[in-house]
Amino acid sequence: MVKRSRNYKLVHYTEVEALEVKEAGASGTRVRWLISKDDGAPNFLMRLFEIEPGGRTPLHSHSWEHEIFILEGICKAFIGEDAHLIGPGYAVYIPPNMRHTFINAGENQLKILCLIPHKNRS
Amino acid sequence: MVKRSRNYKLVHYTEVEALEVKEAGASGTRVRWLISKDDGAPNFLMRLFEIEPGGRTPLHSHSWEHEIFILEGICKAFIGEDAHLIGPGYAVYIPPNMRHTFINAGENQLKILCLIPHKNRS
Repeated sequence: MVKRSRNYKLVHYTEVEALEVKEAGASGTRVRWLISKDDGAPNFLMRLFEIEPGGRTPLHSHSWEHEIFILEGICKAFIGEDAHLIGPGYAVYIPPNMRHTFINAGENQLKILCLIPHKNRS
Repeated sequence: MVKRSRNYKLVHYTEVEALEVKEAGASGTRVRWLISKDDGAPNFLMRLFEIEPGGRTPLHSHSWEHEIFILEGICKAFIGEDAHLIGPGYAVYIPPNMRHTFINAGENQLKILCLIPHKNRS
């Protein structure tokens, strides 16, 4: 059930379309935009990434930060010059302009919440 | 393991202190500030609330929005004039100045991620 009333929104993540991430370097990764500008969110966005075993997000950097929470699965995270193997319950802050990629290092789907600000996104 | 290096942060939520929420109207509720201004986050904050069975957050409204994701447990959410019973995997957007409260309506702990912007917080 998606409930939008008086400008609030309440939705189960499975009710939001999962879109393939087509950026170069990404593989086996889909994104669901759970809360976005279209919902009236004034400052930042909530997205849920689903990464298949062996799949990954692009190795890249950009001018906006990430605030991430690992929901399910095993994640190999490369951040700056470091690598970490992390699982559910980890929070990760990645500052602007720091290189990063997330790889599904497990045998089940990796699910990650990733929030970003509006203002640095074109 | 809390990793802070080159200004990124990586932490399991259980490694962040759980503070009792003392605001009037709250009961059985603790908060862990996972990503905050002190970590260098430029725009918004990530918090994890743990609410015991029967516990609740205050019924209140304020000038900043919430972006919420239910991690574990059964939540009765009052938003504006509406009530919803929701569980893990629900995302909720609450716009500024809309009254809301979250009550643990289950028999296990309720865990909620709740993100807010810096700029509207004193």
